[in-house]
Amino acid sequence: MRTAMLYGPRDIRFEERETPRITQPTDAVVRLSVTSICGSDLWPYRGIQAVTGPTPMGHEYCGIVEEVGRAVTKIKPGQFVIGSFFASDNTCPNCQNGYQSSCQHRELVGGAQASVLRVPLAEGTLVATQDVPQQDLIPSFQAVSDVMGTGWFAADAANVKQGTTVVVVGDGAVGLLAVLSARQMGAERIIAMSRHESRQRLAREFGATDIVAERGQAGEARVMELTRGIGADSVPECVGTQESMTQAIQCARRGGYVSYVGVPHAVDLKGEELFFAHVHLHGGPAPVRRFLPKLIDLVWSGKINPGKVFDLALPLEQVAEGYRAMDERRAIKALLRP
Amino acid sequence: MRTAMLYGPRDIRFEERETPRITQPTDAVVRLSVTSICGSDLWPYRGIQAVTGPTPMGHEYCGIVEEVGRAVTKIKPGQFVIGSFFASDNTCPNCQNGYQSSCQHRELVGGAQASVLRVPLAEGTLVATQDVPQQDLIPSFQAVSDVMGTGWFAADAANVKQGTTVVVVGDGAVGLLAVLSARQMGAERIIAMSRHESRQRLAREFGATDIVAERGQAGEARVMELTRGIGADSVPECVGTQESMTQAIQCARRGGYVSYVGVPHAVDLKGEELFFAHVHLHGGPAPVRRFLPKLIDLVWSGKINPGKVFDLALPLEQVAEGYRAMDERRAIKALLRP
Repeated sequence: MRTAMLYGPRDIRFEERETPRITQPTDAVVRLSVTSICGSDLWPYRGIQAVTGPTPMGHEYCGIVEEVGRAVTKIKPGQFVIGSFFASDNTCPNCQNGYQSSCQHRELVGGAQASVLRVPLAEGTLVATQDVPQQDLIPSFQAVSDVMGTGWFAADAANVKQGTTVVVVGDGAVGLLAVLSARQMGAERIIAMSRHESRQRLAREFGATDIVAERGQAGEARVMELTRGIGADSVPECVGTQESMTQAIQCARRGGYVSYVGVPHAVDLKGEELFFAHVHLHGGPAPVRRFLPKLIDLVWSGKINPGKVFDLALPLEQVAEGYRAMDERRAIKALLRP
Repeated sequence: MRTAMLYGPRDIRFEERETPRITQPTDAVVRLSVTSICGSDLWPYRGIQAVTGPTPMGHEYCGIVEEVGRAVTKIKPGQFVIGSFFASDNTCPNCQNGYQSSCQHRELVGGAQASVLRVPLAEGTLVATQDVPQQDLIPSFQAVSDVMGTGWFAADAANVKQGTTVVVVGDGAVGLLAVLSARQMGAERIIAMSRHESRQRLAREFGATDIVAERGQAGEARVMELTRGIGADSVPECVGTQESMTQAIQCARRGGYVSYVGVPHAVDLKGEELFFAHVHLHGGPAPVRRFLPKLIDLVWSGKINPGKVFDLALPLEQVAEGYRAMDERRAIKALLRP
């Protein structure tokens, strides 16, 4: 079996690696229907986050269960399943509180840019669909595994509700799906901050009512204008830089909600600024597992089509081109077919 | 009339100053029944926060209305009223959202360590009691004006609810009243972090179920032990230093709530630590006005007695001794009688 391996900055190789098999009684082995590249894969790809050696890449996955360990009883071979980037037992107190990505026994899933994947803690991690879905739904289920779950968490953690005004900071796949999520949650006004025409178009299709192309202080000023000087109720921040975080806090109304779902890189919050901004803050690694059943239903019933964020589809062996296209922002997100 | 004036570090003088009168149609002039020293007054007193010149001190107040401006119709001379440190119109969008301390027209109230005070935006700021209260209730109404309102906000912003586990960081008057607030809100377990015997006693009287005397990592370890390795649902942080904030975040469970109500001094939050802590954060200058009607009811009906935080009462002319006693932690909080 071949897997995408990162050797160093911009050095992705698709090379032979042992096909995963059951190593723990709680494992499952899944034959992936599709796989994909995450925005967060670009941090190590760009060398901003170091890798210590050849690293198997990929953590977004869905597919057909091939085999399960002897402790796995509810997930069965032949089922179509969706998991997420942190395997979780779904029974510990953190899981019970809805924070499965902080499971006391969590394990990072890696090596999903391949045709077969071992998933630890399979029973807590995987959710099966009612049937094996048609091909046309597969990209949306693949999105649910990470970006859709993360966009949903971004909107949820920013307290989006019926009638609220939302500003989404970031027009990557997660930001675009935070727009879609806010629409599903009944937001009245959804302002997407985006400078890229193709992303603006998708944002509108997903439910954005306004687009703000300006950034930084000019962007904040424009949001204030659109919200009559008050600021937004909810601001999902879907980037993870100091600039985007500052912008998000400045765009929120007093008492408003700012969420953050991208791993922060060199972000520093000054206590005093936060204090007088009077906002609520919440975020962290998205507990995608919490939302899987709901999101699977929404996809299955055709209510959402998050797979539209994949504007590039390639055979898996061209994974390196997928990274290049996303790095150069030629593609929002690349789907890979094993 | 004489007022407490701060000239520089540890230089409080009680000196003649013009008696305040109505200057705006929206003003009221209040004859103060009592006044007091706030923990936040100690920052400039200690020179940690600079003063640019002789500054009239004090922002906690209750008393009898003497006179109102011509635009004030609902607040009337002779009424006993309670206000808070930010005057607010109580009608702007921020006020309507419950963040009166971020009122678009807010004014900081100052000079309340005196016998008479001018209160701007009186109609939005002041709340009158049903009758002029008995003397024994006055210290509790005085507490409601700031520390009780701030302790309540600390518990509210930390999402304290029926059955939750709470850790209160800080054993000053605000921390102690956050304990009392958490008890009122139905918390099941309230862990107060305190090293001072007299404060531990008051914490227990207000409803603390456990006391943790350790600080820093030892304190966090003790809280983890008491919460079976999970952390607390709610952590009101009532100090405002880097150490206390870090401790609060470390004591919260994943998905838990940390609030902060003391003006932060050189507090810096690292994005990545916050991200993986998975907590909710909320705080800022307490919107005491939001809680005044409820807290006045609780005091009037005898359900809470927050005036107990005043463990020192002095004639107003001894205000400098009040500052010294609080600075040296000989007193939790000083009540001053004009």
